[in-house]
Amino acid sequence: MSSSALFADLYEFAMLRAYFELGMNAQATFSLFVRKLPPQRNFLIAAGLDDLLHEIEQLRFEPKHIDYLGSLKIASQPFLDWLADFRFSGDIYAMREGAPFFENEPILEVVAPIAEAQLIETLVLNQIGLQTILASKAARVVAAARGASVVDFGARRAQGMDAATKGARAFYIAGVESTSNVAAGQAYGLPLAGTMAHSFVEACASEMDAFQSFSEVFPDTTLLVDTYDTLEGVKKVVALAKARGPNFNIRAVRLDSGDLDMLSRQTRRILDDAGLTDVQIVASGGLEETRIDALTSGGAPIDVFGVGTDMAASSDAPTFDIAYKLTEYAGEGRMKLSAGKRSLPGRKQVFREFRDGVAVRDVIAREGEALPGVPLLQPFMLSGRRVAERSCDLPQMRNYAKEQLAALPAQLKALGSHARFDVAISDELASYERETRARLID
Amino acid sequence: MSSSALFADLYEFAMLRAYFELGMNAQATFSLFVRKLPPQRNFLIAAGLDDLLHEIEQLRFEPKHIDYLGSLKIASQPFLDWLADFRFSGDIYAMREGAPFFENEPILEVVAPIAEAQLIETLVLNQIGLQTILASKAARVVAAARGASVVDFGARRAQGMDAATKGARAFYIAGVESTSNVAAGQAYGLPLAGTMAHSFVEACASEMDAFQSFSEVFPDTTLLVDTYDTLEGVKKVVALAKARGPNFNIRAVRLDSGDLDMLSRQTRRILDDAGLTDVQIVASGGLEETRIDALTSGGAPIDVFGVGTDMAASSDAPTFDIAYKLTEYAGEGRMKLSAGKRSLPGRKQVFREFRDGVAVRDVIAREGEALPGVPLLQPFMLSGRRVAERSCDLPQMRNYAKEQLAALPAQLKALGSHARFDVAISDELASYERETRARLID
Repeated sequence: MSSSALFADLYEFAMLRAYFELGMNAQATFSLFVRKLPPQRNFLIAAGLDDLLHEIEQLRFEPKHIDYLGSLKIASQPFLDWLADFRFSGDIYAMREGAPFFENEPILEVVAPIAEAQLIETLVLNQIGLQTILASKAARVVAAARGASVVDFGARRAQGMDAATKGARAFYIAGVESTSNVAAGQAYGLPLAGTMAHSFVEACASEMDAFQSFSEVFPDTTLLVDTYDTLEGVKKVVALAKARGPNFNIRAVRLDSGDLDMLSRQTRRILDDAGLTDVQIVASGGLEETRIDALTSGGAPIDVFGVGTDMAASSDAPTFDIAYKLTEYAGEGRMKLSAGKRSLPGRKQVFREFRDGVAVRDVIAREGEALPGVPLLQPFMLSGRRVAERSCDLPQMRNYAKEQLAALPAQLKALGSHARFDVAISDELASYERETRARLID
Repeated sequence: MSSSALFADLYEFAMLRAYFELGMNAQATFSLFVRKLPPQRNFLIAAGLDDLLHEIEQLRFEPKHIDYLGSLKIASQPFLDWLADFRFSGDIYAMREGAPFFENEPILEVVAPIAEAQLIETLVLNQIGLQTILASKAARVVAAARGASVVDFGARRAQGMDAATKGARAFYIAGVESTSNVAAGQAYGLPLAGTMAHSFVEACASEMDAFQSFSEVFPDTTLLVDTYDTLEGVKKVVALAKARGPNFNIRAVRLDSGDLDMLSRQTRRILDDAGLTDVQIVASGGLEETRIDALTSGGAPIDVFGVGTDMAASSDAPTFDIAYKLTEYAGEGRMKLSAGKRSLPGRKQVFREFRDGVAVRDVIAREGEALPGVPLLQPFMLSGRRVAERSCDLPQMRNYAKEQLAALPAQLKALGSHARFDVAISDELASYERETRARLID
């Protein structure tokens, strides 16, 4: 696995060398924001901050990194010596993980000597981008499940191991119940879930043999019933219950193919007719929010949705236009004037206004303004160290996300809707933007 | 970063425990294949094998893994002791990295005691899936560039660090020239490329000041000209050339926004008029194969395409239906009969037939058959060790991919086409499938 110290675009190192040679070391502010929401999203969920802060706090160039950088023609010995002593010493302000946010809102601001803030650009974009995309997708899946549990089955279909493991964390923040990914369980203490695969059923002499032997080892397991014929599989579970009597403890059956609406109803009936009303139904196989919504809105008796591929890579919106832009250097506002690429100058704050418990408007303001509403950007790192009182655990983040999602207007959350939340720019920020633009055009 | 020993779905460990308790340790064959090509792909490019084999060869459970597994209720002490001694001892047959392949073709087969082959399922799917998806996307981008260079700028938009770094490798195999990702440069010895960011230009007192000072540090750099106004930026490069005279060595200018077709032509004219015919044009900003195709087919004078977001996550086809299925256990063919989920039983081989240097047909056969054409599955690991004579370096894989892509029928490679390659099943395999099905239905 690659080291995060070298996880940067080559041009970051080239610019660092230039800043070094030119003695450019004034304070800079960089803002992280999403320029445009994907058309399939009315809001996004911020995630990935704690992992990012951990990486930044630990960021060091070890001898093997320095040796490699020394082999590139952008390096010089004094610059390599400077890198060997590199520590991130800046401040980071951010929205809490689990916060819904909108277009052009700063979700994180880095205030640091320019080289330090520049070096972490690629890491910040990649890591906050990853978990934010995945948490935003999962929030839709969880909403579609209408209270049924959602389990992450996506490790095999995620884009790499980092995506799978950090994705499981992001999914949990967004309301997913548990993950099948053991590495994520270990890394983040997430609840694990899992059943059995078709290969186990196929390797045994018969399906009945597979059910019997697996449930001898794991009496309260979930049995996968669709390897050969789903309803025949369910009937074998019923037969097993009759044979076992009071020792029957199977918790659930899993349907992984076919018409899940019809099969779940037929399965429920067979189980209920046999008195197995406590045996739950787990459904999986190509599920995403629109299919889940169709199942739950129609009343399909499914207790748990196992969701893989589509959530694992946020297939309908796998990337977004996330940007990390210089907005202030040496005390002066900075911005691009490139076509279609607005960036708001200076340090900023976002105020969220609520009415009767419902979020009604965000205002992006200059840092230091005191406006109505809840300020969303808070210091999470000061002078290179994490702010202890801001640290919270994953269940707290998950609760925060749940509360904040509950407070969003209903039309934003309807699956197929294209609603926009009202995001305003404060008068002070608007006039600062005009001044900065005028200064740059001069 | 998570350890790959725990990078498995919980059910793999549950099944391993069951195999252990039940004494099921016969040889199994698992086949890796893509059930259905994404609608936007007529072929895929196999990639990720060498990284996977390395992980499998190294796979060990360390005390911290055993401790964690011991905390899960699926574990027992004898099972944990068995895991502590785990080594993969099986054989792996696979297509070479860079090979184009099609629906339902086995691209990798694992032959090992069932528990060993089962444990690596999640890892195999995730890792071969990742690089294969990304190489397959990059092949399209490279084709669209029609001989212009393609540089990977995607580290910031990839889904995680693993995706970014292994993606850079996969892109290189598929014909991308270089990457901006320094971690990938170090991990795989890939050529690096990079220029400067808008933040550098904005931090300097003026654009002219930025160009002067950056090119003093890096005389043969690429200057980013679109921070404020692209053509004004290009004129500043011309002014710099006049001021520097024979000491002017700027290699290229980069356009990152606006109408790249029009701007590249105007830029070329300004540069040529100033005698700067050697200064190249790099274009970037939201590029993917269809936009690149439009630019190159229209003759836009762009020498290098910097491609990020869309290639980094294969945005138009970010996942696919890749499966790893038990096809043989204890010498007998195995298969699912679930709706719509065909798997071909037994060990297999794929023969590719060529006519006049063009691939005309693949035949999926039983292992051991001798059919016309080139057999694509070769042993890459035997008894848990990599086969030395099969190892090859990235430039060799890249050349192989180039040759094999050149031999594909033209209609498969046309960007917007939906052509299908002829993939047949040998008579022997077809009758083995029928026999296996009949045996299972009995």
